[in-house]
Amino acid sequence: MTTIIGVDAMSGDHGPSVTVPASLSALAKHPTLQLALVGDSEQLNHELKNASSALRQRLRIEHAAQVVEMHEKPSVALRAKRESSMRKAIDLVKEGQVHACISAGNTGALMAMARFVLKTLPGIDRPAICATMPGLGRPTHVLDLGANVDSSSAELFRFAVMGAVLAEAVDHRENPTVALLNIGEEEIKGNDCVKQTAVLLEQSSLNYVGFVEGNDIFRGVVDVIVCDGFVGNVALKASEGVARMLADIAREEFKRSLLSRLGALFAMPALRALRKRADPRSYNGASLLGLRGIVIKSHGSADRMSFAHAIDVAIIEVENRVPDRINNRLEELLAHLDSP
Amino acid sequence: MTTIIGVDAMSGDHGPSVTVPASLSALAKHPTLQLALVGDSEQLNHELKNASSALRQRLRIEHAAQVVEMHEKPSVALRAKRESSMRKAIDLVKEGQVHACISAGNTGALMAMARFVLKTLPGIDRPAICATMPGLGRPTHVLDLGANVDSSSAELFRFAVMGAVLAEAVDHRENPTVALLNIGEEEIKGNDCVKQTAVLLEQSSLNYVGFVEGNDIFRGVVDVIVCDGFVGNVALKASEGVARMLADIAREEFKRSLLSRLGALFAMPALRALRKRADPRSYNGASLLGLRGIVIKSHGSADRMSFAHAIDVAIIEVENRVPDRINNRLEELLAHLDSP
Repeated sequence: MTTIIGVDAMSGDHGPSVTVPASLSALAKHPTLQLALVGDSEQLNHELKNASSALRQRLRIEHAAQVVEMHEKPSVALRAKRESSMRKAIDLVKEGQVHACISAGNTGALMAMARFVLKTLPGIDRPAICATMPGLGRPTHVLDLGANVDSSSAELFRFAVMGAVLAEAVDHRENPTVALLNIGEEEIKGNDCVKQTAVLLEQSSLNYVGFVEGNDIFRGVVDVIVCDGFVGNVALKASEGVARMLADIAREEFKRSLLSRLGALFAMPALRALRKRADPRSYNGASLLGLRGIVIKSHGSADRMSFAHAIDVAIIEVENRVPDRINNRLEELLAHLDSP
Repeated sequence: MTTIIGVDAMSGDHGPSVTVPASLSALAKHPTLQLALVGDSEQLNHELKNASSALRQRLRIEHAAQVVEMHEKPSVALRAKRESSMRKAIDLVKEGQVHACISAGNTGALMAMARFVLKTLPGIDRPAICATMPGLGRPTHVLDLGANVDSSSAELFRFAVMGAVLAEAVDHRENPTVALLNIGEEEIKGNDCVKQTAVLLEQSSLNYVGFVEGNDIFRGVVDVIVCDGFVGNVALKASEGVARMLADIAREEFKRSLLSRLGALFAMPALRALRKRADPRSYNGASLLGLRGIVIKSHGSADRMSFAHAIDVAIIEVENRVPDRINNRLEELLAHLDSP
């Protein structure tokens, strides 16, 4: 089967200078892939001028006159940017012209447009953002990472269902393990909402394994970790912050003296390997789950390799029919939840 | 003035084998410091057998027959462990025999006992846990880190006051900057409670500078960051988790081949400097703020250097009369808050 992905080619900090080369890489990697690049046709043609004709054949351009800005208010973008590359990429999904779309643009606008155009699945009010975390063990899918705040236990339960389906569909895990993010202070042991969600999960057919703490996010010990979007977003950004701080300090220390510069030279292969394994670029591509369609969010600062990885994520979700599977599983589990 | 600190010498993963040498280090560093080591007198005397008599003079032992276990329920510890080293260390603060106490034990039990014995300051229902974060810039005090969940905006406002007083008293910052931890997704921009707290802070005389995100915790751009304890705890633990993951990967990569081992050898001075600067041991010692007394919580896994650092934190808070200053500031700001 041919997979066709719509690319919001104007999106991200670098726009077509990243999205176009990344798209060509993806086409080279996946021989049956087709792409629809959405954006300013003149700019896109310019970026494509040196592309091999073999790859060029599997790529078409959809002109879009507008661009959603990174800090534009989602409500404004929704109203005023109907001709934007982001909106048109989502429209292509709705019209069945592509199987999925991907954007490195404004997350709030992407969420708002995707929800407006594609609608959510029955039982879902708002999509959740789910990303895969690096770790020493298996990949861990964490959701929600910022699309929902003040989530109820019913919402957290739905995140668990969607995360479990994603782990099954994408990692081919049978009966994936699901955990709730909590805190371990003995006097408190979590907030009320988390405790209520634990009860719902225990009663469900999901493979719920209990509470985990913040440090478990990167241990690769569980397939799915569920949390409120506020908590998930702060945890994700704090983790990025600490990694950046360590990298900055390392850079300073390796530059401190001639001897340390020499040390850096000798340590380079190991440092490069470390960088590669811990590189957030290798994990780029968050899923907006709960929509009637596949929408992938790339990090705004994504480079070519990183954006290409997000296209890979879109392809895998298409091949494994993630929204259908979520829909089926939600129907089954929510029926059970509502029955006495 | 002589400062006297009570040490829960049985606490932490390593008990007296860490707390006693750390106490001796602290005595050597601070020539007028006195310590009261609370715990099993036989064990403590054994650990002290090689101590210099000059240091030994400034240290007394208070026998305690019980120990609070790391995973004991706080309510159980509160009821059944009145003869524990933790409880007796707190009792010494209450009785005015020491100026502050420090424990590396069960956080929940420490909180419960401290609150029961010392009581909270007027206007404070529960103490908050505040720690200093490493960063490239100034030290940032973050609270709450897990003592309170589902905090109201009134509680978050109190955290802000206490954090600001700590930054003033301990870092000698004039008019320290205070920020609220939030998420940046445009469609949402935080939960209701954070938004309400922002209004309270804007109307106060605190130097409120607005929202920061998770990655700003380690940037050292602000003196105080305020958040709900659930969020703070997850952020802290996630950060520890990512740092540990990076260290584990680095260790693996440097051991991979003879060449990479050689690289590690050459890079050692820089790696050691990195480790030292990013070492959580240099930041050990969280404050339980809002009590009528000074209680410092050390990390359970603290080693000698790390536990000694937590003693330093206690000394600084004593010298700067942190609870008195918090009390004064709360009185002033809460009066303003309640007035029309």
